[in-house]
Amino acid sequence: MRRVAIVGAGMTPFGEHFGLGIKDLLPMAFAECIANVDKGIAPAEIQAAWFGELSTTDGFPSGILADSCGLLDIPITRVENACATGNDAVRNALFGIASGAFDTALVMGADKVRESASKDTFWEWAGMTRDMAWDYPLGLIAPANFALHVSRYLHESPATREHMAMVAVKNHRHAVPNPKAQLRQEITIEQVLNAPMVVEPFGLYDCTPQSDGAAALVLAAEDVVDRYTDRPVWIRGVGLGVDRVMHQHKADMTTFPATVRAAKAAYAMAGLTPGDIDVAEVHDCFTGVELISYEDLGFTDRFGAYKLMESGATTIGGSLPVNPSGGLKAKGHPPGATGVAQCFEIFEQLRGSAANQVDGARIGLAHNIGGPTAVSAVTVLGRDRA
Amino acid sequence: MRRVAIVGAGMTPFGEHFGLGIKDLLPMAFAECIANVDKGIAPAEIQAAWFGELSTTDGFPSGILADSCGLLDIPITRVENACATGNDAVRNALFGIASGAFDTALVMGADKVRESASKDTFWEWAGMTRDMAWDYPLGLIAPANFALHVSRYLHESPATREHMAMVAVKNHRHAVPNPKAQLRQEITIEQVLNAPMVVEPFGLYDCTPQSDGAAALVLAAEDVVDRYTDRPVWIRGVGLGVDRVMHQHKADMTTFPATVRAAKAAYAMAGLTPGDIDVAEVHDCFTGVELISYEDLGFTDRFGAYKLMESGATTIGGSLPVNPSGGLKAKGHPPGATGVAQCFEIFEQLRGSAANQVDGARIGLAHNIGGPTAVSAVTVLGRDRA
Repeated sequence: MRRVAIVGAGMTPFGEHFGLGIKDLLPMAFAECIANVDKGIAPAEIQAAWFGELSTTDGFPSGILADSCGLLDIPITRVENACATGNDAVRNALFGIASGAFDTALVMGADKVRESASKDTFWEWAGMTRDMAWDYPLGLIAPANFALHVSRYLHESPATREHMAMVAVKNHRHAVPNPKAQLRQEITIEQVLNAPMVVEPFGLYDCTPQSDGAAALVLAAEDVVDRYTDRPVWIRGVGLGVDRVMHQHKADMTTFPATVRAAKAAYAMAGLTPGDIDVAEVHDCFTGVELISYEDLGFTDRFGAYKLMESGATTIGGSLPVNPSGGLKAKGHPPGATGVAQCFEIFEQLRGSAANQVDGARIGLAHNIGGPTAVSAVTVLGRDRA
Repeated sequence: MRRVAIVGAGMTPFGEHFGLGIKDLLPMAFAECIANVDKGIAPAEIQAAWFGELSTTDGFPSGILADSCGLLDIPITRVENACATGNDAVRNALFGIASGAFDTALVMGADKVRESASKDTFWEWAGMTRDMAWDYPLGLIAPANFALHVSRYLHESPATREHMAMVAVKNHRHAVPNPKAQLRQEITIEQVLNAPMVVEPFGLYDCTPQSDGAAALVLAAEDVVDRYTDRPVWIRGVGLGVDRVMHQHKADMTTFPATVRAAKAAYAMAGLTPGDIDVAEVHDCFTGVELISYEDLGFTDRFGAYKLMESGATTIGGSLPVNPSGGLKAKGHPPGATGVAQCFEIFEQLRGSAANQVDGARIGLAHNIGGPTAVSAVTVLGRDRA
């Protein structure tokens, strides 16, 4: 397959951007991304775009991107795959370039969750990430849905709420130096454990905030990469996996088969194993989900995630730092933007210019799990072409 | 680029399927599609899927497709591009196979418009095909939006409401022998002209009905086509174009630049010209839109569409039959399914097995225009590989 690299990346800060609409956020991320291409790129050199967007209610997504970024002469496809939207947009853009149809492509992700032109629809759309006839009437929106999994996981594995709290403390600490992050304050284990309960076993600090934001990447084919940078970040592997939608059909609540499938595909394409990963952005929408994902991504054995927390392996300075950006937990989570912003973070990490740098990182991984734990997307990036 | 063919196609009848949900419609179309692969295909041979879905409110689209069709081991991407969703799903699946990532892929399109688990959201989502802050409050949902264009077109071109009525009469007549069509009765020019007004210049019979339905295609790479059929239909070209979202920004209301861009890309990829097309499915959501699209697709000169109607060129038996299936106007229009179902029709036409067959058709075209006339997708299919 024709190889594809990221040659530029940008993102808005994630946060409660009450004063900004998606028509503001998109061109902000786009402008930073373009400015971040070492040798420069004219917008007219971008041949196609893929737009990851889940829940924004401001109108026709592809058209709003075209309009607000002044990209009227290129095809723009909106991709939606619940919270795996961002990394799936990267995956589809890669196919577009790898096919030979385009030499360059823009990937954007954005969502405007905190306020929008039609506020009422957000919660309708939150319902759209699960089954409206069966899950939604039971109240199985995101926290309750993941709580079923994590409750069972706490029952079957040695992990405790303290291990979950360690995830929150770690990711908040990681976010402090990151100017893009929404929650840049350190917290303590005690604060996490004593916070108001959202849904058992998630207290307030076990949950990602709701966020507005946008992120952008410019991708280029191996044939033209040199025009744009001498230090590209290669897309080594992409993977997407699905699973049953409704919880009564899931054979095991303590693992996410969608992640296992997505990771298997991405590692196979990359010719790499979990042991090759130097830094990862993992979908920590709720703290316990980061623990389960360590196992699904092959970072540790089944039910071994608690040991990674106790050893500090996934903290900056450890053997496999996870969520150096602060993760969804502290950087924030505008769903459509999240996966694209994870790739922004890994791009910066592999170039040695991250806000919270992991020394010597050469291979990184970005991971989303979304919907009723029924879809996952994984992207593996590397400083080396293969 | 690695060549890709359609080796099987299926669709449900389009109509008011009050008794069926999207979880029924999807497996119906999938089963017919699989059964339509000459040499057979096991579901396990399908390596990936793309799902075009615009407005269904039953829940997480990719997951519902996976669940209801029993396709849990493959990646499934939902593509949304307003009414151009279906043909853009075909385009993305083609890139997936052409890239070498997959040898086979399923393309599905579906929407359940007439009743759904959460009825209220449909009209919110109709708004989502335009700008919620500017167009939607003015009432510029689909009929009003296209009416602005067609009113101006009637003013500037020699076409009249009678020519629009001829489109409705033709497409209703075409639908009569098509068992998949929603409105299988002939109508007269007088009926069209005397029908209740929806929005000037569209009477009731100038408008597509609202429809439920699903459609499916199996795509295969040139390397493996022979396993599945000896009479593949090749995807010769794909194109997607965008335009400004809001009408105050459109320089000329009498043409759709999105279609011009999409068609240019698809013809270039195919190495063909408008004169090579033997049969076409054109996006006739409103009768006047079929007229404008004749010009944007290059079937006639600017403002020359009325002549094609007067000569009968686009009727079965004419030189370039358009919408032999009945089109959106009479076959129906479940938005996410429409483009995929157009490709089903062209697939059947090029194999000589259509319900309303165009004699000797070897090259066909499918066309969508969607959103606030801000996006278009075009697919060119052929019996010959190149």
